[in-house]
Amino acid sequence: MSNNDDLEKVRSLIKGTRIAMLTHIESDGSLVARPMATQEVEFDGTIRFLGSRTTDQVKAIQQNPRVNVSYSGDGSWVSVSGRARVEHDEQKLKDAWSSFTDAWLEGGPENPDNVIIEIDGDSASYIDAPGDSKVANLLNLIKQKVTGERIEGDSGEVDL
Amino acid sequence: MSNNDDLEKVRSLIKGTRIAMLTHIESDGSLVARPMATQEVEFDGTIRFLGSRTTDQVKAIQQNPRVNVSYSGDGSWVSVSGRARVEHDEQKLKDAWSSFTDAWLEGGPENPDNVIIEIDGDSASYIDAPGDSKVANLLNLIKQKVTGERIEGDSGEVDL
Repeated sequence: MSNNDDLEKVRSLIKGTRIAMLTHIESDGSLVARPMATQEVEFDGTIRFLGSRTTDQVKAIQQNPRVNVSYSGDGSWVSVSGRARVEHDEQKLKDAWSSFTDAWLEGGPENPDNVIIEIDGDSASYIDAPGDSKVANLLNLIKQKVTGERIEGDSGEVDL
Repeated sequence: MSNNDDLEKVRSLIKGTRIAMLTHIESDGSLVARPMATQEVEFDGTIRFLGSRTTDQVKAIQQNPRVNVSYSGDGSWVSVSGRARVEHDEQKLKDAWSSFTDAWLEGGPENPDNVIIEIDGDSASYIDAPGDSKVANLLNLIKQKVTGERIEGDSGEVDL
């Protein structure tokens, strides 16, 4: 499968997932994951979340920008490795803001504590299990990875 | 909520999730997540997965044991931070092995490449959104975290 096909696949799997897990590294070295609402924008190698500077999560990401974003769908999984930038960019916040955002972030795009967390992906991988028995097929896909056998299903890696 | 109640909650949320995401750190510093089949054992602070020494994942975990295990349910999310031990313990492999395992790991518990990945949790946190509108309620729970307001729903942290 070409890199372009893999990117297209990652894009379609991400599109269907409303909540992603964002994993960052705390100052004590522990890895912590938090659910994040995804933006309804086509994946172009960069993932955007909204957040607040007042949270431990954003503070830790500003100290250590290495993060992972994972998506768990119905029989499909995506892992994106990358680096996060945290900035209060009022125009980008306005573009990404919705009435949904008002429900949990206060003060609108003007509030300097509200930030865009922009993750530039370095690489991504996915597993997409076919058919009805998604979990069984996931295991077959893992077998493919472990033993090198060709089996039904789909997985790949893509540089971003 | 007491630490015991939170642990009980984490236990029940984990129990219902068949596939977890295991995030580790590669030698180049990037964070990579992989779906893993969970063991049907009550969570006691330690999480066990089966794997193969021949995979990049297990090799990386042996170099750097800091990992995160996350569970995405229907409106609930769990994050467990911990350290992984990788060992070929034939008795533990036998105890955890099933016909399911034979489908993707070759050679049975006797194969020295087959290993138990045991993650001792340092801390865990969870979000459990109530009711029908799980995503909207997740956002309310995040608001609770960000603004300190009390709202419906449930979240907590627990030392393990």
